[in-house]
Amino acid sequence: MSETPKKKPGALARLPRGFVDRDAAEIAGVNAMLDTIRKVYELYGFEAVETPAIEFTDALGKFLPDQDRPNEGVFSFQDDDEQWLSLRYDLTAPLARYVAEHFDALPKPYRSYRAGYVFRNEKPGPGRFRQFMQFDADTVGSASPAADAEICMMAADTMERLGIARGDYVVKVNNRKVLDGVLEAIGLGGEENAGRRLTVLRAIDKLDKFGPEGVKLLLGAGRKDESGDFTKGAGLDDQAIARVLAFTAAKGSDGAATIANLRAVVAGIARGEEGVGELADMATLFDAAGYGSRIVIDPSVVRGLEYYTGPVYEVELTFPVTNEDGQVVRFGSVAGGGRYDGLVARFRGEEVPATGFSIGVSRLAAALKSLGKLGAEKPVGPVVVLVMDRDQIAEYQAMVSELRAAGIRAEMYLGSSGMKAQMKYADRRNAPAVIIQGSNEREAGEVMIKDLVAGAEAAKTITDNAEWRAARPAQFAAKRGELVEKIRELLAGR
Amino acid sequence: MSETPKKKPGALARLPRGFVDRDAAEIAGVNAMLDTIRKVYELYGFEAVETPAIEFTDALGKFLPDQDRPNEGVFSFQDDDEQWLSLRYDLTAPLARYVAEHFDALPKPYRSYRAGYVFRNEKPGPGRFRQFMQFDADTVGSASPAADAEICMMAADTMERLGIARGDYVVKVNNRKVLDGVLEAIGLGGEENAGRRLTVLRAIDKLDKFGPEGVKLLLGAGRKDESGDFTKGAGLDDQAIARVLAFTAAKGSDGAATIANLRAVVAGIARGEEGVGELADMATLFDAAGYGSRIVIDPSVVRGLEYYTGPVYEVELTFPVTNEDGQVVRFGSVAGGGRYDGLVARFRGEEVPATGFSIGVSRLAAALKSLGKLGAEKPVGPVVVLVMDRDQIAEYQAMVSELRAAGIRAEMYLGSSGMKAQMKYADRRNAPAVIIQGSNEREAGEVMIKDLVAGAEAAKTITDNAEWRAARPAQFAAKRGELVEKIRELLAGR
Repeated sequence: MSETPKKKPGALARLPRGFVDRDAAEIAGVNAMLDTIRKVYELYGFEAVETPAIEFTDALGKFLPDQDRPNEGVFSFQDDDEQWLSLRYDLTAPLARYVAEHFDALPKPYRSYRAGYVFRNEKPGPGRFRQFMQFDADTVGSASPAADAEICMMAADTMERLGIARGDYVVKVNNRKVLDGVLEAIGLGGEENAGRRLTVLRAIDKLDKFGPEGVKLLLGAGRKDESGDFTKGAGLDDQAIARVLAFTAAKGSDGAATIANLRAVVAGIARGEEGVGELADMATLFDAAGYGSRIVIDPSVVRGLEYYTGPVYEVELTFPVTNEDGQVVRFGSVAGGGRYDGLVARFRGEEVPATGFSIGVSRLAAALKSLGKLGAEKPVGPVVVLVMDRDQIAEYQAMVSELRAAGIRAEMYLGSSGMKAQMKYADRRNAPAVIIQGSNEREAGEVMIKDLVAGAEAAKTITDNAEWRAARPAQFAAKRGELVEKIRELLAGR
Repeated sequence: MSETPKKKPGALARLPRGFVDRDAAEIAGVNAMLDTIRKVYELYGFEAVETPAIEFTDALGKFLPDQDRPNEGVFSFQDDDEQWLSLRYDLTAPLARYVAEHFDALPKPYRSYRAGYVFRNEKPGPGRFRQFMQFDADTVGSASPAADAEICMMAADTMERLGIARGDYVVKVNNRKVLDGVLEAIGLGGEENAGRRLTVLRAIDKLDKFGPEGVKLLLGAGRKDESGDFTKGAGLDDQAIARVLAFTAAKGSDGAATIANLRAVVAGIARGEEGVGELADMATLFDAAGYGSRIVIDPSVVRGLEYYTGPVYEVELTFPVTNEDGQVVRFGSVAGGGRYDGLVARFRGEEVPATGFSIGVSRLAAALKSLGKLGAEKPVGPVVVLVMDRDQIAEYQAMVSELRAAGIRAEMYLGSSGMKAQMKYADRRNAPAVIIQGSNEREAGEVMIKDLVAGAEAAKTITDNAEWRAARPAQFAAKRGELVEKIRELLAGR
């Protein structure tokens, strides 16, 4: 009788590129982080909701940041009935579908949050995966800038609750209507200019990277980078470029100054003035609730997605980190979002106001790790009962069961190796102690307990082998009946 | 400027069949359940590991229960380089890949657990989804029946920790080697009989459903069901059928009797005797650790998968539930697994002993729900600050921020509706209280607090509208400066 499936020596044990496994330490660290975020969101009145990983392709729509290649970036496949299905590429498109589907049953405004994996069929690179986790929060059904303001404050609270000190992060806020006003003023309004508007958005988004001079080129004829590659520009004239740059440079010494500068840039353009008014409303709320210094209005924030319709915001970490090349850099953006009043309309015909943001979980976890705030240390392992005599397995198992019944993490060694390998195993598992019962101990009604933590410390000071054997540090005998008690004492001493 | 993406009136807000959304109550209930399971597994020394949802198709292999249609049941798609990728259909195949890939770095035996979604491209039905969660635990690198026994005990502990009383569940154990021995004895050994063996396995698996008479037909020429559909049988002769049925009927009054019966059935067949020996070893461990009554040896358990090579086990819930048709039925199997020494060998050439089991999370959650043990009640909502005057939003927001800073779940109403709709919203959110500040309260430096829980109770006894207005039950004024304190007192009184 064949007990194995057909062997395929050709089956390679590897993952496709852009996918990763996660070990116990990472899972524990990230789970603790997710739990903290969840608590802040709950405090703000948001409630959990979850949608599946697979949706109809047409329900998801095409809202990936890189809209030039609308059919790329998504994992898709046909169902039995030939309808196209896709793995979700973010958590916003499925939320829009969910809200539209359950519209009448949901309380409105509807505050919700969800963490989940999303999938991008893109070329992976360092820190860029094809499966990664996002943690989103959204308020659907409120057109009030107070809803946007609330999410910005929640983002600030989340950073602090995760251990990022005030001053080490900033929430930056802008408003698409202001930018839309500027674009309208320079003649880029209307459906027919959608493509050029996107080029302008992308140019502004490069402000951090290329500076005002580089952006100026991208707004005009185009820009050649150091390798000689040429990026075609938006083709604006000098006056238009000046107006766009005036907008991006409108940040003043404080919020009031920024708002005054922006008012000047969009003077006379209704849509732009509406946007500045919303920013002023939000600033009032930030001040009233004591968030004035943590949330700043910054006209350079545009966020790449065309679907944003009002306030946009992002969380930037400002503390310096040393990257792999030894350079000191800022960590940068770990979360972002904005208002997307049109997304639910795809299903319902009418617009449904909505605003929300997304945390890049891996990126934020990496940031916390660099601050020593992820708590991703190797978890303490179980107490290991060694198997000294094969015919005594039932007795060793009974010891383990007693320990577990007392709430102590414990296991019996299940391999077939000898004493030395068993000690090595216990060490690898990060076991706090091992329990040994050979025939001598059994006859005396005892067990030998080795305290591995104390043992490791003693080993640092005792250098001589003979001295070690004489002292037998961190090893003591205990009555069999006192096993649980002694182990409990040992663990409590940590 | 167009602020909405192109509207597609054709985009329907719906999910493909077999996929579901989960709401806050369900998420909270299932998360609490997963947390309990995780704690038991940690106590047993198992550690978390997670693999991605997508793997190379050839790395997953074809180990679905229904092996007749090896290319069906899996969601697959081609990568850019034309390699086939698949969504995982269980958590065992990816674990085999993981262990093979990281073999030298892992402690051995390697105990691990993981919860995650799996995907089946199958026809969905009631309680049968195309995305569902499994919670697995496996021990890789131990050939000892003690490893199998440990998982059975862990399964029993898990059920009790979840609130399923002793006697309401049973862990059933069998051993494939015993069955293999029987099959060898009736001439079904060898690679060439793999198909017929599978037919025999499936026939035995139907014992619960069709009884011994039905199984007898399936082992012989075949069986016609009530609708007239004919299932072709295994084509065994009468003597062979009798021997298989003797095996399935070998359960005695206790474990020792069952083992004695099984010994008689496989007498003289080495492989069968080896299996009975392993069952006897496991029974000894169960007795030593005090699990004798909760884990029983039951020869009718076969588990469908061809890849099992030794002990197999499943957890069955025995308490009666009333199904949708009003019939009283047993809940049945909620978890199962067994030894699969050949699975890692696909990658490594050599066999790596392994044993593990899988909990069907949705099924177990449904069982707990029917027992009232899922805790899936609607979570308590936030305290809602009503918006009475639009120009006072900053002040309302400040109240909310104070409450949140004190750790109290709170929110300001963010919609644009009037008082009545706001009260309805608070009710829908399951808010414990609302806070009201109109101009009168503001001038008096006060807020009005409505206790919605007490209010709902009072409403049951007060029937007259005038009486209600006079009594104004569960509504009281508080100084603005005492808001947090009064709300805290109100919540503490629950």
